[in-house]
Amino acid sequence: MVRRNVNFNPGPAALPFEVLKVVQEELLDYQGSGMSILESSHRAREFETINDQTIMLVRELLGLGTDYHVLFLGGGASTQFAMVPMNFVGDGQVAAYVDTGEFASKAMKEGRNVCDVHVAFSSKDEKYRRIPQMSEIKYPVDPAYLHICSNNTIEGTQFHEFPATSNVPLVADMSSDIASRRLDYGKFSLFYAGAQKNLGPAGVTLVVIHEDFLATARKGLPNIFSYRTHADNKSLYNTPPVFGIYIMKLVLEWLKNKGGLAGIEMINEAKKDLLYGAIDAAPDFYIGTAEKAGRSWMNVTMRLPTEELESNFIADAGKEGLRGIKGHRSVGGVRFSIYNAVSLEDVQKTVDFMERFRKSA
Amino acid sequence: MVRRNVNFNPGPAALPFEVLKVVQEELLDYQGSGMSILESSHRAREFETINDQTIMLVRELLGLGTDYHVLFLGGGASTQFAMVPMNFVGDGQVAAYVDTGEFASKAMKEGRNVCDVHVAFSSKDEKYRRIPQMSEIKYPVDPAYLHICSNNTIEGTQFHEFPATSNVPLVADMSSDIASRRLDYGKFSLFYAGAQKNLGPAGVTLVVIHEDFLATARKGLPNIFSYRTHADNKSLYNTPPVFGIYIMKLVLEWLKNKGGLAGIEMINEAKKDLLYGAIDAAPDFYIGTAEKAGRSWMNVTMRLPTEELESNFIADAGKEGLRGIKGHRSVGGVRFSIYNAVSLEDVQKTVDFMERFRKSA
Repeated sequence: MVRRNVNFNPGPAALPFEVLKVVQEELLDYQGSGMSILESSHRAREFETINDQTIMLVRELLGLGTDYHVLFLGGGASTQFAMVPMNFVGDGQVAAYVDTGEFASKAMKEGRNVCDVHVAFSSKDEKYRRIPQMSEIKYPVDPAYLHICSNNTIEGTQFHEFPATSNVPLVADMSSDIASRRLDYGKFSLFYAGAQKNLGPAGVTLVVIHEDFLATARKGLPNIFSYRTHADNKSLYNTPPVFGIYIMKLVLEWLKNKGGLAGIEMINEAKKDLLYGAIDAAPDFYIGTAEKAGRSWMNVTMRLPTEELESNFIADAGKEGLRGIKGHRSVGGVRFSIYNAVSLEDVQKTVDFMERFRKSA
Repeated sequence: MVRRNVNFNPGPAALPFEVLKVVQEELLDYQGSGMSILESSHRAREFETINDQTIMLVRELLGLGTDYHVLFLGGGASTQFAMVPMNFVGDGQVAAYVDTGEFASKAMKEGRNVCDVHVAFSSKDEKYRRIPQMSEIKYPVDPAYLHICSNNTIEGTQFHEFPATSNVPLVADMSSDIASRRLDYGKFSLFYAGAQKNLGPAGVTLVVIHEDFLATARKGLPNIFSYRTHADNKSLYNTPPVFGIYIMKLVLEWLKNKGGLAGIEMINEAKKDLLYGAIDAAPDFYIGTAEKAGRSWMNVTMRLPTEELESNFIADAGKEGLRGIKGHRSVGGVRFSIYNAVSLEDVQKTVDFMERFRKSA
């Protein structure tokens, strides 16, 4: 019998147990090939099938047509922070960024290493406690794109509506909420997500680009940093992170069996309702840090009245198998990262613990 | 009972069965953590220990001191093709490349997207059949570095001595022969290797840089493409390919148990002697394609008298469980990739098959 803790890690994060069991089962011999998928050539039929199926699953689950290229790249979302401006900011153009948290800001700062950057909104002076009203986002005429981070992992905030940018391409880092809810992904010219929160293990990044946007990409870049290179080669220009793509496929199949985005959204809504319910039921003890309108469904952040109580809370939770809940070092407190693979039952167990802890404190 | 084929894939390639069994065993619960290593935070103690141990194993096995930074990056060796010139070619400087095969040439072409390139030697007109004499390598005064590819996977050639570049930094792509033989790694200012041949699965690249060379790196690059960023953060600037690094650690431990580089060199020498012996015993039937002096110990390439015989050979070998031996599409023929994880017994089985096939043909 395997003893498993509840994994609230912010990323790399929990994977569905059903998926891990398949990975384990197939590890020494992938579907009768006599080899592990870890040893499979990326040019082998076995892997090409996985690659094609994963592309189709992304399109199917996110409701996208073949006018979107689906890429699986190495180097993490942080590589996209550089590749997006390298590919899409023309000479003399400016790129606009919405600054709602540490990762949004990291993307913007990397943008500054590549091009001129316009800050379309920032909640930095408000400790990133909130997401802007759409009317607060101001950008210049004809920026190359508007970049947002749809969910702010560290600060526990999330966009629940998206700017209508008209003909300005909307670009989003969706690393921490991709495929967690129904959404019109067709609004975006490009979005990307490190797999390690909702899609798979660390080491593979999903990048989705509309073909019209891709057609505007710069030429003359190093081949490896050109989206065109990867789109032209179905992510097989160089050796891709084979094992990560294989697990992504299994995770997407698992998601499909849960009823796709509509199904997982229902579960995710129930999970966040439980946790925010527990916070709002005792607001002087469990002090939510995000403004209510912008609360994240994926990362629930709170403080307790003292740092000592926070330490005790984290230690006691750990003893009950609730792990990975220490807030990011830059903000402190407690954070529950409740990505798709964290079950409703585990969250119920957590709010039960919260009630017991509060009463005994 | 698991049925395993002999995996001669050129990369991603065979992993030691002992390593795969450990991976399988630990997959659902990594050493009592109650989580899979696939779900481990890169900031968790478990992973930081793995990261530190892997760095130490690289230094220990390759005989390097702490004056070398050891990095584990995503994006494949192809990302290094761009990062090396981005980081090390100053304004007005030229980078020198030795062109001995398809990957050497790919590195050089990517270099041209970044800086001025000088071709120090090329065997392209000789179908990349050979490695230069060291005296044939000619480069201009004060190039930023001299880049070589130590083993040419596709063409089956390998450097058995290295240019004495004096104060010109020597840079090498060692993707397909790293850690396969004793070598003075201290000759190199920088070397890198995609893990998927001798070190682990696809998705992680080992980069080793001498601190003095790193000190000369350019500033003002995107952070993610700056070696300094990764060296300053022990590869934890952004989320690294956690699972790939974990497997690399297991592979390096396996290698240490085999007697390190001296031990594996003995095995690799016996393997290549068997295969080249079989070729040289019937040189009109098994036609080695590489010049003898530059034959690779890792990729043994040959043609048969007709393409039909080649097809039959590959098909018959496949029936005996010898897989992944089709030559690269650019050169045809047959290629045995006999990286560290391919055993001497499996190579013996292969030469036995070769003799039977030849006699029955």
